[in-house]
Amino acid sequence: MSVLDNAILVVGSVALDTVHTPAGEGRECLGGSAVYFSLASSLFCPVRVVGVVGEDFPDAHRDLLRSRRIDIDGLKTLAGKTFRWTGRYGEDMANAETLSTDLNVFERFKPELDDIHRTTPYVFLANIDPELQFDVLAQAERPKLVACDTMNFWIDRKRPALKELLGRVDILFVNEAEAKSLSGQSNTLSSARALAGWGPSVVVVKKGEDGCLLWARGAAYPLPAFPVPRLQDPTGAGDSFAGGFLGYLASVGGGLSDIASLRRAALVGSVMASFTVEAFGSRRLEGLALGEVRERCDAFARLLQVEPYAVPGAVFPN
Amino acid sequence: MSVLDNAILVVGSVALDTVHTPAGEGRECLGGSAVYFSLASSLFCPVRVVGVVGEDFPDAHRDLLRSRRIDIDGLKTLAGKTFRWTGRYGEDMANAETLSTDLNVFERFKPELDDIHRTTPYVFLANIDPELQFDVLAQAERPKLVACDTMNFWIDRKRPALKELLGRVDILFVNEAEAKSLSGQSNTLSSARALAGWGPSVVVVKKGEDGCLLWARGAAYPLPAFPVPRLQDPTGAGDSFAGGFLGYLASVGGGLSDIASLRRAALVGSVMASFTVEAFGSRRLEGLALGEVRERCDAFARLLQVEPYAVPGAVFPN
Repeated sequence: MSVLDNAILVVGSVALDTVHTPAGEGRECLGGSAVYFSLASSLFCPVRVVGVVGEDFPDAHRDLLRSRRIDIDGLKTLAGKTFRWTGRYGEDMANAETLSTDLNVFERFKPELDDIHRTTPYVFLANIDPELQFDVLAQAERPKLVACDTMNFWIDRKRPALKELLGRVDILFVNEAEAKSLSGQSNTLSSARALAGWGPSVVVVKKGEDGCLLWARGAAYPLPAFPVPRLQDPTGAGDSFAGGFLGYLASVGGGLSDIASLRRAALVGSVMASFTVEAFGSRRLEGLALGEVRERCDAFARLLQVEPYAVPGAVFPN
Repeated sequence: MSVLDNAILVVGSVALDTVHTPAGEGRECLGGSAVYFSLASSLFCPVRVVGVVGEDFPDAHRDLLRSRRIDIDGLKTLAGKTFRWTGRYGEDMANAETLSTDLNVFERFKPELDDIHRTTPYVFLANIDPELQFDVLAQAERPKLVACDTMNFWIDRKRPALKELLGRVDILFVNEAEAKSLSGQSNTLSSARALAGWGPSVVVVKKGEDGCLLWARGAAYPLPAFPVPRLQDPTGAGDSFAGGFLGYLASVGGGLSDIASLRRAALVGSVMASFTVEAFGSRRLEGLALGEVRERCDAFARLLQVEPYAVPGAVFPN
């Protein structure tokens, strides 16, 4: 297997985030969906980023991404400033209030794939305009597996395009509230089932502190979240989840009908999200070693393992 | 071990519930916290109910409870009508809107324990006035283990009494929203930790569709809910959970420091709740066999078991 056989292309945002949470604040943190995704997935397989930054994007961030063996040849620099987002999380750390969004150069983002991008077998379409997600698919050459994420903004504004996109996607990652809003269903299980009916073989509904639901081959596999005692900043948890999930899946060459690999992928995704929320921005991921990930995956698997039902010694036979 | 060594005393409500859900309606269903708890726990160990009904309480219900080997000698009949509750669940089946509450004879409920009740080793104080819960404890003679449930109504009105009660309780079962309200914390994990600080060695936060969090010996054990494809009526899920949990724990003689038994108890509790919500009122529990429970427990344990982290074949060594 050549290294290219299991590489992932991610197309999404690269941003400088300023985040206020009850645990403190992080200023101009390296962030954006493509950054969280690629930092998480690059532990498992080669990753190529297509995105855009402004002239003010620090070289140190480029160096960091390269040091994590992320291919950023597709990260273009345009005249102007980098995308900036400022948000504040309430006491429950569940939802962010956006204080400001300055799209800057991201407003002019038009993904262009070079030959290596086009032939990358795994494609992750991070949360961007569904029409741009389509553009990427139009350029890609028979990818082995396509996954995407989305958000309420596009669900409200571009539902038809999004629905059409889902017909061409293998794995959908989506938040609980967004899954319900998109499907019109009222609970997680029925939302996942409904969305799978629109195209994706696999639907992963992300529920933050409440874990996730993996829907695959007509069955539901729930997973709680790995308990994190000191939550600092939930930003990027979803993209880190997707990065861990797809990175792991690509690294084992797992397909869409390989339930055991999909379930391990969900576990790895949860673990990557649990690391991300332990520090502001992407800091926790920046120096993370595969050994730490493996250790937490094993601890999580043990935490989930309940011994089979033990019948008491015929105290009360039935 | 004699049968008495692992019996449970439950003190709570016995009601006739009328429930409207998106899946249909159930009229004058046998319900109440003591009923759900005892139907669930009686699969595992002997159960004694202390409660009150009115003269209109159908004999068929008494027969049913007895047929499930539930001791209802402590179920008093007072002049007047049985407690009735009418509620409606919205599309998400998460929260009920109360349409009417007729306490009737339940308003005059004053638990009185006879000698057998007093010496029953496991005690479950279902969701009633904390002062009545105290009354029961005052009458009980050195129970081996005391568990309780509560609700917002008492959290809002009798917080000091409730807090004092928790100082004398071993296991607290509580809903997610109530755990946050009672503890003043904003997430499940910190709520469980805070409430354990008030007395109970074990805290179980119930999260409905999102499963539960078991807090024991300073550590968190999350569990998703067993996926139920056709939810009919969520009424009684919490009390069925507590019944499965305590019934299993009593049947194996599990103590508060036996993490493996506590975790299996949480799994059994989840499974009992998953049966309850499959039909209106307590109907699904009424004819449930231990074999069905064991089968679903095993299926659930398999659903949770993720194989240990498999390192891909050195595709990308780190």
